[in-house]
Amino acid sequence: MKLLTFRQGGIEMVGMLASDEKHVIPVQEAGLGYKTMQELIENITEDEKKALSACTCEGIALDSVEKMAPIPQPRQDVICLGINYMAHAEEGARYHNEAFGGERPFPIYFSKRVNEAVADGGIIEAHRDIEERLDYESELVVVIGKDAKNVPHDEAYDYIFGYTIMNDVSARILQTRHKQWYFGKGLDGFTPMGPWIVTRDEFRDPPGLGVRSYVNGELRQNSTTDLLIFDIPYVIAELSRGMTLKAGTLIAMGTPAGVGMGFDPPRFLNPGDEVVCEIEGIGRLTNTIGE
Amino acid sequence: MKLLTFRQGGIEMVGMLASDEKHVIPVQEAGLGYKTMQELIENITEDEKKALSACTCEGIALDSVEKMAPIPQPRQDVICLGINYMAHAEEGARYHNEAFGGERPFPIYFSKRVNEAVADGGIIEAHRDIEERLDYESELVVVIGKDAKNVPHDEAYDYIFGYTIMNDVSARILQTRHKQWYFGKGLDGFTPMGPWIVTRDEFRDPPGLGVRSYVNGELRQNSTTDLLIFDIPYVIAELSRGMTLKAGTLIAMGTPAGVGMGFDPPRFLNPGDEVVCEIEGIGRLTNTIGE
Repeated sequence: MKLLTFRQGGIEMVGMLASDEKHVIPVQEAGLGYKTMQELIENITEDEKKALSACTCEGIALDSVEKMAPIPQPRQDVICLGINYMAHAEEGARYHNEAFGGERPFPIYFSKRVNEAVADGGIIEAHRDIEERLDYESELVVVIGKDAKNVPHDEAYDYIFGYTIMNDVSARILQTRHKQWYFGKGLDGFTPMGPWIVTRDEFRDPPGLGVRSYVNGELRQNSTTDLLIFDIPYVIAELSRGMTLKAGTLIAMGTPAGVGMGFDPPRFLNPGDEVVCEIEGIGRLTNTIGE
Repeated sequence: MKLLTFRQGGIEMVGMLASDEKHVIPVQEAGLGYKTMQELIENITEDEKKALSACTCEGIALDSVEKMAPIPQPRQDVICLGINYMAHAEEGARYHNEAFGGERPFPIYFSKRVNEAVADGGIIEAHRDIEERLDYESELVVVIGKDAKNVPHDEAYDYIFGYTIMNDVSARILQTRHKQWYFGKGLDGFTPMGPWIVTRDEFRDPPGLGVRSYVNGELRQNSTTDLLIFDIPYVIAELSRGMTLKAGTLIAMGTPAGVGMGFDPPRFLNPGDEVVCEIEGIGRLTNTIGE
């Protein structure tokens, strides 16, 4: 089931993508009262999921609604994994002129502040006045479905509601200059997400999904989540030993090699560039760099 | 005006500390309908502030209510400054056996995930199963009063609603091991905050306030916000060039020297220890380390 947030007549709604992928069926049409994705994630029952997926209503034409990010205003910062694919670790070290011996004993966690996540089709603010090295990172995002504390490794998938795509847009000068990555990762408009959440039941555990990105149609990243250094159960188990991961928590699993800083010379983004982040089984998240 | 959040009969309320500092006057008694501090910060008018501070109602005995953190569930992570006092920069470098030449050209920003901020008098979870080096950091917190974007340096104070105190509890092993500080700073129960917000009008700009901490009664930190490396207007101006700081945003300005890792040998916290964070003109935030 693909679930999306959209606006119609100025009102935020949640809906299911119809099987033709050209219509969206508001959850209300299946008798569900949820007004936001956060509310749906926190409360939807298995029976409601069945009723919704069985709904044969025609729905609304997708191109007639205003698409929004699946969770437009996440309740907390997005938890992000840094350097979680080996080939990306190598390109990052190269960019920073650091030696890299392949060691990665512990995950790197940081967070991304999101005032308003950018929808599929939306604009990524370039922030040219404070940054000249704008970069893209295509990432699988895990959406937590119920409060998770002290989750054993082999139960981790039970806590997953679904998956979506995020472009972890990064301001490389700010990210490096301020030591901790927070400022360079959390600028307004730096979190395109979507186009929808695909529920966990559509994948096997673990979901071995192709992760790609394209800049102006040119393939830049092309890897698979099979190559994650720290996999999804590892991350949920480790984090939840210390912090409760509340329903609706978003965990971005890190990006593979092929980002702009990985090229020699680097290939950063410019106003007008189109970036597509694509994950197998989820879809394509397309955004344009603003002026 | 000192504003606090508390629970009475299971219901969260917002109130003003009475002048005897032994009673709290619910804002409803002054005709204000705000149910949470976040709602109050976003909406209170100057006239309402005057009406509230003029209210002479007796209020409720402070020791009969359940004190809560002023904003118990912040809408976004707390933005934190790292190493923002020179003497703390020196002790940190010493702890990590790093050379330190006094250079600090750019602020360090990171964030602190807060599921539920701990109230004055509450317990700090020790997380002994994953951390053995628990540390305290007494910090001044700036509470943003209205959405701030591209704020000029000389208008920064206009965006401040008030100030409170935070203990930026830190798990030093996790903080260091995972490179980015996020995980080691954001464990459940790691954000004691309070006991109240003091509105900006009670201070001069900038507020040169003594910042202290005590562990089991022993003075450990003793400095002043006059010694901040990057001051409040600098931080608001810089951050707001890239990210909108929404009303209710919390910015912790960093901690002075005297934290546990600064001693030789280090003096980390143990279960049962009492930590007091004290800031002149605001008050004392007292918490105990749990088992």
